[in-house]
Amino acid sequence: MRGGVVSLFERAFQDYPSLSKLIVLFTVSGGGLVAYAEAKPHSSLSGVESSQVDTKKKRVLVLGTGWAGTSFLKNVDSSLYDIQVISPRNYFAFTPLLPSVTCGTVEPRSIVEPIRNIIKKKSGEIGFWEAECFKIDAKNNKVHCQPTPSVGSTDLGVKEEFIVDYDYLVVALGARANTFNTPGVVENCHFLKEIEDAQNIRRSVIDCFERASLPNLSEEEKRKNLHFVVVGGGPTGVEFAAELHDFIREDLVKLYPAIKDLIKITLLEAGDNILNMFDKRITTFAEDKFRRDGINLKTGSMVVKVTDKEISTKERSTGETSSIPYGMIVWSTGIGTRPVIMDFMHQTGQTNRRVLGTDEWLRVEGCDRVYAIGDCATINQRRVMEDIAVIFSKADEDKSGTLTVKEFQDVLHDICLRYPQMELYLKNNRMKNIVDLLTDPKANVNKESIELDIEAFKSSLSQVDSQMKNLPATAQVAAQQGSYLANCFNRMKECEENPEGPLRFRGIGRHRFLPFRYKHLGQFAPLGGEQTAAQLPGDWVSIGRSSQWLWYSVYASKLVSWRTRALVISDWIRRSIFGRDSSGI
Amino acid sequence: MRGGVVSLFERAFQDYPSLSKLIVLFTVSGGGLVAYAEAKPHSSLSGVESSQVDTKKKRVLVLGTGWAGTSFLKNVDSSLYDIQVISPRNYFAFTPLLPSVTCGTVEPRSIVEPIRNIIKKKSGEIGFWEAECFKIDAKNNKVHCQPTPSVGSTDLGVKEEFIVDYDYLVVALGARANTFNTPGVVENCHFLKEIEDAQNIRRSVIDCFERASLPNLSEEEKRKNLHFVVVGGGPTGVEFAAELHDFIREDLVKLYPAIKDLIKITLLEAGDNILNMFDKRITTFAEDKFRRDGINLKTGSMVVKVTDKEISTKERSTGETSSIPYGMIVWSTGIGTRPVIMDFMHQTGQTNRRVLGTDEWLRVEGCDRVYAIGDCATINQRRVMEDIAVIFSKADEDKSGTLTVKEFQDVLHDICLRYPQMELYLKNNRMKNIVDLLTDPKANVNKESIELDIEAFKSSLSQVDSQMKNLPATAQVAAQQGSYLANCFNRMKECEENPEGPLRFRGIGRHRFLPFRYKHLGQFAPLGGEQTAAQLPGDWVSIGRSSQWLWYSVYASKLVSWRTRALVISDWIRRSIFGRDSSGI
Repeated sequence: MRGGVVSLFERAFQDYPSLSKLIVLFTVSGGGLVAYAEAKPHSSLSGVESSQVDTKKKRVLVLGTGWAGTSFLKNVDSSLYDIQVISPRNYFAFTPLLPSVTCGTVEPRSIVEPIRNIIKKKSGEIGFWEAECFKIDAKNNKVHCQPTPSVGSTDLGVKEEFIVDYDYLVVALGARANTFNTPGVVENCHFLKEIEDAQNIRRSVIDCFERASLPNLSEEEKRKNLHFVVVGGGPTGVEFAAELHDFIREDLVKLYPAIKDLIKITLLEAGDNILNMFDKRITTFAEDKFRRDGINLKTGSMVVKVTDKEISTKERSTGETSSIPYGMIVWSTGIGTRPVIMDFMHQTGQTNRRVLGTDEWLRVEGCDRVYAIGDCATINQRRVMEDIAVIFSKADEDKSGTLTVKEFQDVLHDICLRYPQMELYLKNNRMKNIVDLLTDPKANVNKESIELDIEAFKSSLSQVDSQMKNLPATAQVAAQQGSYLANCFNRMKECEENPEGPLRFRGIGRHRFLPFRYKHLGQFAPLGGEQTAAQLPGDWVSIGRSSQWLWYSVYASKLVSWRTRALVISDWIRRSIFGRDSSGI
Repeated sequence: MRGGVVSLFERAFQDYPSLSKLIVLFTVSGGGLVAYAEAKPHSSLSGVESSQVDTKKKRVLVLGTGWAGTSFLKNVDSSLYDIQVISPRNYFAFTPLLPSVTCGTVEPRSIVEPIRNIIKKKSGEIGFWEAECFKIDAKNNKVHCQPTPSVGSTDLGVKEEFIVDYDYLVVALGARANTFNTPGVVENCHFLKEIEDAQNIRRSVIDCFERASLPNLSEEEKRKNLHFVVVGGGPTGVEFAAELHDFIREDLVKLYPAIKDLIKITLLEAGDNILNMFDKRITTFAEDKFRRDGINLKTGSMVVKVTDKEISTKERSTGETSSIPYGMIVWSTGIGTRPVIMDFMHQTGQTNRRVLGTDEWLRVEGCDRVYAIGDCATINQRRVMEDIAVIFSKADEDKSGTLTVKEFQDVLHDICLRYPQMELYLKNNRMKNIVDLLTDPKANVNKESIELDIEAFKSSLSQVDSQMKNLPATAQVAAQQGSYLANCFNRMKECEENPEGPLRFRGIGRHRFLPFRYKHLGQFAPLGGEQTAAQLPGDWVSIGRSSQWLWYSVYASKLVSWRTRALVISDWIRRSIFGRDSSGI
């Protein structure tokens, strides 16, 4: 299948000079994930052996089945550990297609994969419990859980919480929508994080059209019902606005001809631009396209209050406030902290943060056996300047109080591994070697003879930490963290004996593992009307119908199983033949 | 496409002697409905003409978009009337596949067709409002409606009711589940009448499995959660039990291996047999199959109470009561009256009935401009004995006080049209002609010389009314009533001038239309494991895998549009490749 899609690429992109780059991207991301999805389980141990091993197996508890947790689960060698997964939902959802679900371009069931299907394919015993963790007790290596509330009217009478012990805990609980404590948002807005959200939005859109069609409404009331507001100009909000526009233009106006002139979509963004994490060219293209499409784009506009009838905004520039009646609001302004994570942060003294801080090996700071990955965590990269003294003393092998170029060069590789900002700094400043860093390039000195004391060393590295940046809260980061951590778990014993990580500057020996490194594979922003913007590594930007095909291909290849892939592709085919469904279910 | 399916039949049924019968059935039902689904709209009037006609057009209001309402809508000539449809759901659902939706064999969206899609294809102006009719005011030709409650949190502020006038009203509101006022049923049981019910059942099944997998449960509690109870042994209950059994056996046991021995399905039926409207051979086959499958079949067992934990039953034979803990109950014991119909029945003085009574032309008794079709109505066929005096006097053309054979023969055709039980009586008693009815066949009399007085006439017809029976509350009846009524509306003017109905015995002239006649095209009962029982007209019974194919073919051909047909078929293909999905959405 991969071969097939690549040849499709060749046709679709034959007039693009950077085709090779695209294929590289596709092979890396799509192909890699195909392998990841289809990874064969390790041969399981025979009955007797495994029960002998069982007594020694460490218990690994995974909380969450989103991108991070599922990626961990798929990559971990389940014959080595006694693995238990706990999540309030028994499936993994391919969230990048959620905006497509809101308008019926793709069916909800096509983008989910039951966790038990994934478990079934792995060796060893992996357990899954559908429950919600409401307290992490890292001091006693326990978590507290309760069953998720049941659907419908039947109360199954299993309300009691239960406690689970662990040897290692992998926290991959994700985040919740961030309302910035804006009043009325929780009560009146739709979010777009879960499958259920997408289903509710879909019903709600149809509901608004049906209500606007009722006989006893003034034109003003009809306009109110047909006013769709999207708050947040990030990729999710933009994609939803674009999908909604397509749904309305391609399908709904034909079914509701009487009210088609009263429809309005408003996109509110507090910043100066939508898609501000993308290249300027993409932002401009998207804004122009939205304006041409008649989407009411309001940047620099903050939402201050939402009631059941109106949404109130404040212009950042003028301070002016105004209220507009609406039919439906979708709120998509970034991520907030889940209560269980907040509580855990308080326990570990991380009080002034928004997400759990981990070290570069994804271990929660202050908790030896707890790892955190995905949207609920962030890596606190150590600064070079924090450790400058120990780096200096480690590098100064002859303890002379000064560093020679050779001494520095010997530890440079370890510094770059331990502090990725160092590597980035060298690269971004186009420094060929370390000597450029230590001296003024214009000065004409004998480079071999340089010797630096600690103050000179500090001053040459003083700018390095400016290269540090936090990773974005994306599926790509979460998935890479999950597979990185699984890989560490798989080689725990091996690396205990032969550590492969960088030198411990503040200790003896080496770190067991290389720290986590994120590899950005590019990002897509579908803009509707078969137009997609793609920002690929190396500032390569592609906009248009060809990117739409790239988007289709990459997403189809990334889906977790052949089942979901086939379902999504058949949904796309169904949509292209029959259009989207407008029934209110 | 029809040709293709027929040739498939020839392959599938080549060893069946009654193949020709099957093909007839298929051509009649499937083929007929294909035509019905694809009927081309009448050429619409040009702009000027239509606005001139508009002023004279009668307003037809259709309540409900189930089988009856949708069938009416598809067949009515919408250029002749000003048609408005009101229903709380904006789609038609192909309900015979609802049990398949409960277990994910078919997706909900595949069996629905938006009403506006149907409207779009018709000529003239048809309006649709998504609202619930809560009061019919036949005295003033008005109905009172209110918008359906909106989904999610947004209150759109359109709570006010509205009133709609009509010239003709078509009541096709269907029925609700009948609980027989058993305490606790509404609170604790699932019904299976709407798409949402099927979706909830599906979630609930998965929920029960997830809860039974949790760590803090005793085996007894696990058994409780995995005890699925179906109340009612009619076609819906039986099909659901069979689907659930297949879902568990084919898909779920692989994903929940630890608890697979604790699963139990119980089917409770108050009568002596399940499927009691079917042939005895089918009943026996189904009961045997269920017992072989390990489904706990309890006949003669009435449910007396349901609590949130237990269901209590009473054995009809012994009077013994017992209570069993359960995980989920699906209640499917026939139909009850909706409140709005109950209220309307009180207005029209039909107080001691369960559904609206209509005459043989589907007009609600006592309301000239109101028609009722589908599950909310029943035809009150007049008895011959009620009208025996007027029939006699109409037939006695020379007013001699006695009837000759010739006089009787002249009106016999009209009697058979007006009183279908007459035709049935003649046919069932194998009477070749009317003389057999009037005389003792063994007596040797000169048939031409018979003259009957009123008493003799009464006594010869005294057994005729025993042939009367009510029509079942099925989709087939509802669809036929809808198209019959549409046909009457289409030819209202024509038949006003040239009435085609039978003689009015209690009045002058003829009835405008022929009365409604139901044509039974057979019924299916899928029993799981690729086994389906089919009871076809003329007591022809077929059970097994071949009937399953027949079932697939007929249902695929009956679906309202090419869209739903393609979707359902692709769902079947998806299921056969990937199995059913077990994620809890």
